[in-house]
Amino acid sequence: MRIVQKYGGTSVGSLDRIRKTADIVEAAMKAGNEITVVVSAMSGETNRLISMAREMDESACPRELDALVATGEQVTAALLSIELQSRGVAAYSFTGAQAGFLTSSQHSRARICNIDGHRLIGHMEKGEVPVVAGFQGVDEDGNITTLGRGGSDTSAVALAIALEADCCEIYTDVDGVYTTDPRIVSAASKIERISYEEMLEFASLGAKVLQTRSVELAMRFGMPIHLRSSFEMVDGTFVTEEDKTMERAAITGVAYNRDEAKVTIQGIPDHPGIAANVFGPVADAGINVDVIVQNVSEQGHTDITFTVPRADYASTMALLKESCDKMQARNVLGDNTVAKVSIIGVGMRSHAGVAKEMFDVLAKENINIQMITTSEIKITVVVDENHVDQAVRSLHDAFGLSQSE
Amino acid sequence: MRIVQKYGGTSVGSLDRIRKTADIVEAAMKAGNEITVVVSAMSGETNRLISMAREMDESACPRELDALVATGEQVTAALLSIELQSRGVAAYSFTGAQAGFLTSSQHSRARICNIDGHRLIGHMEKGEVPVVAGFQGVDEDGNITTLGRGGSDTSAVALAIALEADCCEIYTDVDGVYTTDPRIVSAASKIERISYEEMLEFASLGAKVLQTRSVELAMRFGMPIHLRSSFEMVDGTFVTEEDKTMERAAITGVAYNRDEAKVTIQGIPDHPGIAANVFGPVADAGINVDVIVQNVSEQGHTDITFTVPRADYASTMALLKESCDKMQARNVLGDNTVAKVSIIGVGMRSHAGVAKEMFDVLAKENINIQMITTSEIKITVVVDENHVDQAVRSLHDAFGLSQSE
Repeated sequence: MRIVQKYGGTSVGSLDRIRKTADIVEAAMKAGNEITVVVSAMSGETNRLISMAREMDESACPRELDALVATGEQVTAALLSIELQSRGVAAYSFTGAQAGFLTSSQHSRARICNIDGHRLIGHMEKGEVPVVAGFQGVDEDGNITTLGRGGSDTSAVALAIALEADCCEIYTDVDGVYTTDPRIVSAASKIERISYEEMLEFASLGAKVLQTRSVELAMRFGMPIHLRSSFEMVDGTFVTEEDKTMERAAITGVAYNRDEAKVTIQGIPDHPGIAANVFGPVADAGINVDVIVQNVSEQGHTDITFTVPRADYASTMALLKESCDKMQARNVLGDNTVAKVSIIGVGMRSHAGVAKEMFDVLAKENINIQMITTSEIKITVVVDENHVDQAVRSLHDAFGLSQSE
Repeated sequence: MRIVQKYGGTSVGSLDRIRKTADIVEAAMKAGNEITVVVSAMSGETNRLISMAREMDESACPRELDALVATGEQVTAALLSIELQSRGVAAYSFTGAQAGFLTSSQHSRARICNIDGHRLIGHMEKGEVPVVAGFQGVDEDGNITTLGRGGSDTSAVALAIALEADCCEIYTDVDGVYTTDPRIVSAASKIERISYEEMLEFASLGAKVLQTRSVELAMRFGMPIHLRSSFEMVDGTFVTEEDKTMERAAITGVAYNRDEAKVTIQGIPDHPGIAANVFGPVADAGINVDVIVQNVSEQGHTDITFTVPRADYASTMALLKESCDKMQARNVLGDNTVAKVSIIGVGMRSHAGVAKEMFDVLAKENINIQMITTSEIKITVVVDENHVDQAVRSLHDAFGLSQSE
């Protein structure tokens, strides 16, 4: 098998962790695989570099921040190569530029344009292990760029695609995706296999195991991701294309997000263009609106309710109160003690009555549902934040996810 | 003027020192110069990186050490660029590779093959300041290399030549070359102007102000070096071609080196090939022989005396005692309490009797001369290490170098 292995900051957070990582690489080589490794900076290193830059200039230029921060991954790549060589594994470190990552020129949030993988393939074919500094590349003019938020997993997946690898293994400090948060439901179990679509829904709910951008990329090219722990050598969760041959449970997991606030605009005239009036200023302020519900019209007026991240609650309320008159709205109400609970699963496409069952479960628990939205593979309700644990537990049980071991 | 400024590790050893360095760069820009900056790693950073590598593997591979260590200068270059930008000076950091340094492939001791300066010149012509990571480059295959011992000054001088600069300013923590060590002679004075040849003789005597390799390069291309302090804005020492129009003092300075040991091989047969017999094994052991004196032959036998660095004394003695029989020598004697004292100056070419005067001065001080060697611009004597201070002081006075201020 040809495998791209990616190790995050905690997996290379100390010289001792780098040795443990080398154990894994070495074992994979000895098992007869072709391996390319992608590494993050040692945990804490990126922050150390950025804080030096900020001390010089709070608004330091992104080009220079990229050149500065890119050294973090370069250091890890060299150290891991040294460790591998000391065990007789022929390893070579590469910066993003050397590994062939060509990106756009938007510093600190560059997009990968192309990867010329011929050099790395040459090494792998000779039984050597390229160790690549993740998260970085160069633009057409040779300037060092970084990929920004979600970039290190993305660089691994992109490289796996360019190298025509069989799998991209993402090593982190958790051992997979769980049916729900084990801190809430102790009977939560690791999901063996999950579809890209489901993984995206989990990620969008704040289950921060895999960066959304990398999952989208893997989905587009059908690259299997094996999400697993570098601290324990057990299988993690495979993120792959939906397996249509398998009989599936109705839902795959229960997710939640407490970082929510709800805003309601009451009594605005119900005519075309009101949504634009409401959401224009919010979007202009860079606030990410999530669930939106518009009630049916009564006597030519309607109510609109939506959620925003809790950190944006105050500024959203201020914005809307300001434009209340312009919107001809009666009132603006808010609540920053709400949370989202979702059930996710490609199985719900073929199982009828999943939504009804969800509402029944919550009703039996006496949990009031404030908002509902649905997608093809997800049903989300907004509830009082005090009801989250209870809602998650009861749904996890009711849909048969709790294991009796 | 077009100037390449090079700042050593202590000149960029902290964020505060980087700010001071930015002061100097900014002032030089405002004075209407075109500036390219070359920086070292922050003092201590290179050692920090190397010790991590050594902890992984004592004999870490040079290719990976180069990739690791090169990040040190990259960090400084980015931080200095950020500081310059915060003052409104358009600055751009470059790695060695980005700046166009093509080197040989000998990792950790690469030689500069070519510098493509067009990108840096383009920036300078737009009034921008390139800030280049010194000490590094890439080989033909794009592998990161470092220049090894003497490399950071050398990269600055080489860049100055490639950019057709008017001068290469080397900023360090001393403010120039002195007529002798001020710790021994308080009346020692800063030399305003010194020839490349004299500078090389000073450097070879252990006066570690400018790296020999960089002086040799500057001499070959006639690039003036201004050696000066980043801690105090006064003129330092200009290292330039010999100024033949000026009347010169007989000597320019007095140098010494206590790191010496003397070895004498007594009574070896005086026939062709004996020198090879003696120095073959010593050279094979990588020991650097310095002053060599062979006495006239007596009854077909002769004595050979030479000096080695004190650290190599024990192994040299062991080697020679071992081969004493093979050399048909009578005896091998040694002394590791000797030192060299030299007077240096292009002026001695045109002043007769300089050697005689040196010997007179030492005789008057009752200092026994154990060995003598001369070059065109230097006379060196080997004396007991306890006489070094007295010898340096008396020579500095006798040749009129002590200032009465």
